[in-house]
Amino acid sequence: MAVCEQADSGAASERTPDGSPPDPAALIARLAEAIGPDRISDDPDLRTRHATDWSGVPAAAPLAVVRPRTTEEVSAVLQICSAAGQPVAVQGGRTGLCGGAATGDGEIALSLDRMTGLSTVDRRAGTLTVEAGVTLAAVQEAAEESGLFYAVDIGARGTAQIGGTIATNAGGIRVLRYGMTREQVLGLEVVLADGTVLSDMSGMQKNNTGIDLKQLFIGSEGSLGIVTRAVLRLHPRPGATATAWVTMDDETLLPDLLASARAALGPALGAFEPMWRDYLETVSTRMSGFSLPLDPAPVAVIVECFGPDEAAAREALEGFLADRMEAGRVTDAVIASSVDQERRIWAVRDEVPAAYPTAFKAIIPFDVSIPIGRMNAAVGEMRSELTTALPDADLLFYGHLGDSNLHVVVGLHEALTTEAKHRAEAIVYDRVRALGGSVSAEHGIGRSKRRWLAHTRSAAEIETMRRLKAALDPAGILNPGRSFAA
Amino acid sequence: MAVCEQADSGAASERTPDGSPPDPAALIARLAEAIGPDRISDDPDLRTRHATDWSGVPAAAPLAVVRPRTTEEVSAVLQICSAAGQPVAVQGGRTGLCGGAATGDGEIALSLDRMTGLSTVDRRAGTLTVEAGVTLAAVQEAAEESGLFYAVDIGARGTAQIGGTIATNAGGIRVLRYGMTREQVLGLEVVLADGTVLSDMSGMQKNNTGIDLKQLFIGSEGSLGIVTRAVLRLHPRPGATATAWVTMDDETLLPDLLASARAALGPALGAFEPMWRDYLETVSTRMSGFSLPLDPAPVAVIVECFGPDEAAAREALEGFLADRMEAGRVTDAVIASSVDQERRIWAVRDEVPAAYPTAFKAIIPFDVSIPIGRMNAAVGEMRSELTTALPDADLLFYGHLGDSNLHVVVGLHEALTTEAKHRAEAIVYDRVRALGGSVSAEHGIGRSKRRWLAHTRSAAEIETMRRLKAALDPAGILNPGRSFAA
Repeated sequence: MAVCEQADSGAASERTPDGSPPDPAALIARLAEAIGPDRISDDPDLRTRHATDWSGVPAAAPLAVVRPRTTEEVSAVLQICSAAGQPVAVQGGRTGLCGGAATGDGEIALSLDRMTGLSTVDRRAGTLTVEAGVTLAAVQEAAEESGLFYAVDIGARGTAQIGGTIATNAGGIRVLRYGMTREQVLGLEVVLADGTVLSDMSGMQKNNTGIDLKQLFIGSEGSLGIVTRAVLRLHPRPGATATAWVTMDDETLLPDLLASARAALGPALGAFEPMWRDYLETVSTRMSGFSLPLDPAPVAVIVECFGPDEAAAREALEGFLADRMEAGRVTDAVIASSVDQERRIWAVRDEVPAAYPTAFKAIIPFDVSIPIGRMNAAVGEMRSELTTALPDADLLFYGHLGDSNLHVVVGLHEALTTEAKHRAEAIVYDRVRALGGSVSAEHGIGRSKRRWLAHTRSAAEIETMRRLKAALDPAGILNPGRSFAA
Repeated sequence: MAVCEQADSGAASERTPDGSPPDPAALIARLAEAIGPDRISDDPDLRTRHATDWSGVPAAAPLAVVRPRTTEEVSAVLQICSAAGQPVAVQGGRTGLCGGAATGDGEIALSLDRMTGLSTVDRRAGTLTVEAGVTLAAVQEAAEESGLFYAVDIGARGTAQIGGTIATNAGGIRVLRYGMTREQVLGLEVVLADGTVLSDMSGMQKNNTGIDLKQLFIGSEGSLGIVTRAVLRLHPRPGATATAWVTMDDETLLPDLLASARAALGPALGAFEPMWRDYLETVSTRMSGFSLPLDPAPVAVIVECFGPDEAAAREALEGFLADRMEAGRVTDAVIASSVDQERRIWAVRDEVPAAYPTAFKAIIPFDVSIPIGRMNAAVGEMRSELTTALPDADLLFYGHLGDSNLHVVVGLHEALTTEAKHRAEAIVYDRVRALGGSVSAEHGIGRSKRRWLAHTRSAAEIETMRRLKAALDPAGILNPGRSFAA
């Protein structure tokens, strides 16, 4: 794939004299001329489809849907849009949960869905080179076919595109062992707002030569540039696993249990997933099809351990849990003795969200981070305040403790009102701020969390983000109104 | 430690009318007034000491040495310097090898050596909070005292300061298993050129809220801001190790052996350190005190494997090597059967640099990265060209293959001339460029590699770095003339 390294600025005269964008028809014609009419559509159905994402954030249909096939075409589109001051909504699989891909008034949608090229796996380097529109599932499959493993996994894997997972620094269930998407990106190609192509695709882990530019684009939700290609790090296939369901009568010992698990199991610790009492009781009483391995307790934890084979994984996990029970730090524990038991344990963690629609009339979900040592305080304080504010609601607290990630779900037995939503948000995000946490652990800010960004980021940080945005996208055309962008 | 979040701009009128910096005496007086006279010295001995770093790059003594004790004092100093257009050399332990900390004409030296505060280890979160001037060795010791482990290690550990290791994204011998310094930094506090303090010290792994600003400052060599504090990730203590010395008659199978080791040993693979034939022969013939475990071969590799105990580590390593010998991929191998044998194997890799002064009149050292699959080609081509250009020199090729890192040392038996140095640099860096590698794997660019930066970074990348610099340090006062900065 050839690369156009520096954008020219020949399009700078396209802006209308009063500074407003050109009329939509003229812009579409100009884009069609530059990259071909088959790359651009103003079909009403397609525009409606590309207006929204999984968040359900209300959106206006885009003026047009632009679907380039190459980095050069992305560059050509952005040169024209930058010169015209034309705002651009950057779209991957549109599976985000904060409305980052939902289009705004007068925007064009730039979808990466036709950039689906995929290299063969470089087994010796342990890398895979992909275009942005490849789905996460296709990346996982390509790795597996080569006997390797791509470590990021999220529920939307079949639709989410790898470029979107990079732009949002996707997390998921394996962060404790493998890190976020940031740690899987060894090389990145990005197009800036003016069409400049930054291509850093050699995929070497050590490269201390000035600013590591790719870090800027990972997690900044398309506000600084559009990811077009990436070199991904693959891992050896994980070995066998052993899975335990552990209960504790004293939830304040939870962070200590995590520290002990890390010390005893080291990198073999694969998951440490607590579910607090209200979660366990709600699953028991409101949902069918789940069987708790042990009676509800103040907190239960799924602990997963890797090993070269099943016997070794099980032996390590048994040794750890026996030691902790003897020390009085764990109340009870069962280790899955079959694949089916393992599946049933994980179902209590993974398949509960699918039961929300039958258990509740509506939910108010949260994805926040809390420093590990304050997690129990956060649960206790949020529980108390949410119960007072919404006494008829069920509360579900669960998380990935090792990553500081806490999920809170408020399950309503009546229709969702704006007032209930705002009361719950104020309670949760104010607690997050008071405890030094983050209003978004892994879903990002998008449109729907913008008003809460300042609960986590200082005025100086947000101002610095905007200075950087102004340096790279002075016309502010990329994803305006999302994340930190004005 | 309280934090001053936003710099005021009250000092903006301090610049002299023609735009030149104020005279040194006036500037020193103003700094002394702001943070106290005991924080600033123009003592000639101290200035001479702070002029240089371990690179030996020639330097002018700084106008003064400023040694703040708090983030607020760093902020006050930078507000005054920014307003005055006064260039500042940022200094940690001054152990860099590329002259980044060597002062330039008319600069003041800002040393972090009095900011040596260290929190107690948070065992539950697995973190340590430190001020920038704490030495790497002190960080390692604090972690060990708490039963944990800080994963970055370099030879300069007793003098290098943690702030400097962050600003240069230090690597070292454990990158294969634990990653570079970037992967150890969970929180960072930085002062921008105008005195603005960016403080992101909650230390949570998941925090997707806008640009991850700390990533900008890691590895950019003090050109964008001054690191004042950090939250570091600690790991469980590594388990026992087994160490093998492996020889191969066919060096082209090296990347395949690495891929096999990763597949067989997973995260237990701790080191994979090849040394090519000329290295082995030079150590055998020119240096005393080393014993090669096996006869010189086209390439030898030190392979290290971790395990919960010595028997398990040894068993895993033996199983892997037996399989590879049976497959004809390895010629010969020995596993250390005692601590002393292990020490002697590692000495051939670690203690050879200390023997350079007796073996050679001078050396020309290189620290580059090469994509793993092209490493043998790089060695072959560099060997051939260097031998032609400098026929009397000895060549040493060795590296960390898993990190793409190749070290090349040209050992001279005559005095170093500028001409020889330039010829060797042109050969090595031109090969690096041709093979898509990096002119600096871990030492950074500093002053001494600036002319080669464009061999690794495109014009668009360097221009983008400068745009970011202009956004955060418009007067260009921080470390001018280093790395990518004009």
